[in-house]
Amino acid sequence: MTPGKAEKRWIVGVDLGGTNIVVGLVPIEGGDVLGLRTLPTDSVRGAKFVVDRIAHMVTDAIAEVVAAHDTTRDAVAGVGIGSPGPLNRKTGTVINTPNLGWRNFPLRDLIANAVKLPCTLDNDANCATYGEWWLGAGRGTKTLVGFTLGTGIGGGIVLNGEIYHGCSDVAGEIGHMTIDSNGRKCKCGNYGCLEQYASGPAIAARAVEGIEAGAESLLEEMVDGKLDDVTAATVYEAAVMGDPYATEVMKETAKFLGAGVASMINILNPEMVVIAGGVTRAGDHLFTPLIAEVRRRAFRSAQECCRIVPAELPGTAGVVGAAGVFKKENYGSM
Amino acid sequence: MTPGKAEKRWIVGVDLGGTNIVVGLVPIEGGDVLGLRTLPTDSVRGAKFVVDRIAHMVTDAIAEVVAAHDTTRDAVAGVGIGSPGPLNRKTGTVINTPNLGWRNFPLRDLIANAVKLPCTLDNDANCATYGEWWLGAGRGTKTLVGFTLGTGIGGGIVLNGEIYHGCSDVAGEIGHMTIDSNGRKCKCGNYGCLEQYASGPAIAARAVEGIEAGAESLLEEMVDGKLDDVTAATVYEAAVMGDPYATEVMKETAKFLGAGVASMINILNPEMVVIAGGVTRAGDHLFTPLIAEVRRRAFRSAQECCRIVPAELPGTAGVVGAAGVFKKENYGSM
Repeated sequence: MTPGKAEKRWIVGVDLGGTNIVVGLVPIEGGDVLGLRTLPTDSVRGAKFVVDRIAHMVTDAIAEVVAAHDTTRDAVAGVGIGSPGPLNRKTGTVINTPNLGWRNFPLRDLIANAVKLPCTLDNDANCATYGEWWLGAGRGTKTLVGFTLGTGIGGGIVLNGEIYHGCSDVAGEIGHMTIDSNGRKCKCGNYGCLEQYASGPAIAARAVEGIEAGAESLLEEMVDGKLDDVTAATVYEAAVMGDPYATEVMKETAKFLGAGVASMINILNPEMVVIAGGVTRAGDHLFTPLIAEVRRRAFRSAQECCRIVPAELPGTAGVVGAAGVFKKENYGSM
Repeated sequence: MTPGKAEKRWIVGVDLGGTNIVVGLVPIEGGDVLGLRTLPTDSVRGAKFVVDRIAHMVTDAIAEVVAAHDTTRDAVAGVGIGSPGPLNRKTGTVINTPNLGWRNFPLRDLIANAVKLPCTLDNDANCATYGEWWLGAGRGTKTLVGFTLGTGIGGGIVLNGEIYHGCSDVAGEIGHMTIDSNGRKCKCGNYGCLEQYASGPAIAARAVEGIEAGAESLLEEMVDGKLDDVTAATVYEAAVMGDPYATEVMKETAKFLGAGVASMINILNPEMVVIAGGVTRAGDHLFTPLIAEVRRRAFRSAQECCRIVPAELPGTAGVVGAAGVFKKENYGSM
């Protein structure tokens, strides 16, 4: 006997990244992620390998959780997949992902066939933002903008409890708004994108430039003089350890990020801005100057109703949000 | 006998600006504006004067149109008012308009009492964008971003056929997105706002700076050597007349504006961007370099589904959109 919709208990969330695949079961009514597992994507081994790996991870996670709860696979409603884009949500196709080397790849249906469950597909950055909205920092808000600072700067926009996709599923590319129209060339082809100033590699590059120009910093010692080894994480750590130079680099990062956040606040007037990614480990070294910069830049009546907060689900926001997308598309309400 | 909702034929639109008040009757089912009239705002004569002037203009416009159509005042459903902001739509209050010198001014209810008709209040730039969406360049689209280039740069965002207001009615301030984080100080307190590079005064200022630095141009002759008299309009006219320097200034304007438009396309992925204001009189001198700049900057899959077009209702978009807001709020559908 197949249980009805009301008896379904979990949705599987899949967070497919260029480096890792993360899978877990999210309770339909919200709650902690169960059966969480991570494996490397190993995309060099080909698309079929990646699809098989995802399918195995989904199957294993379901088996583990249903056994522990003394129930059956029928308690799982389906699978939400978050993938790098651009993608076509309607057809479930990944149009193009340089990181994985895929083109017009029917990811959703391949997974659905392999695991024999209905699937949805959405953009990874959208899913991370939606996860924070559903069960993380944004619980209870209606309107939220998410910035995810990593190798790039991903973004997502939640309006009235739904991911805003725009007319061709590209909306939310807030890392590619121009904050300096004659600025650094970006991989996307544009100039002066926020991503060129506040992403992980941009933070590391700015830190190294300063040291090469003679700035003194703990950073040099931390990487045994090998400046190529400086990453954004080294910079946060040095800032947290009290290194004045690293603190200065984080302040500068906060200023660039603040220009982008203020623009989003003036444009969308959201209730909340959620900042995700390793950079939030810098804590007040990031948030204090960030909030000050936004105060200096954004319209007062817009900033007064907007909280700027760190993400609460590091590591699982993508899985939670991918499952949330499945829920929204299949159940209508959250 | 009062006619029912179905027998109402017109909505009055009021476009209140710092310089002029424009009033007209818009057919509920769409069509040409009737009884259109314009008078100076004369805000120095005080708020009561302005309210009385609006009320008289509304009453006169209604009288003229109903007489011409052999009907009665009962055929008018109500009045939509567009006003400079920020404002509180719920209470119908203008929070603060430096141009008119008002603070917490209950504009909507004062007009409603004076003309004995229900009224709605929304931001002037939102109304102009909504007018273009309803009966202008944006007819038939779902998602649209409007840029109005004038003394400042106003903006509006229409999502799924509704003005997007954000959580405190501030959304759509796209003239105040930062396109140069270390750039020119803006009146709003921010730095490097788009408005500082592509508004009317910014265009005129850039043109004058170049002439003072030695550039040769028809412009000097057009203002009899009085460079203070150069306005954005003089610059468009000189460009249309073939002046190479003015054409260069318009190209530069298009580049700045293109950075802002591309950011909005990457963020909101709209079906259309509508450019309004006198600047559109420059025609291809603006739109050809603007579209080229956006192509250079925005994500291909976002720009491919987005048309960038001039507004079609110069002079009446604000009136049409203000009436459209009344219709949307009272009738639900458009």
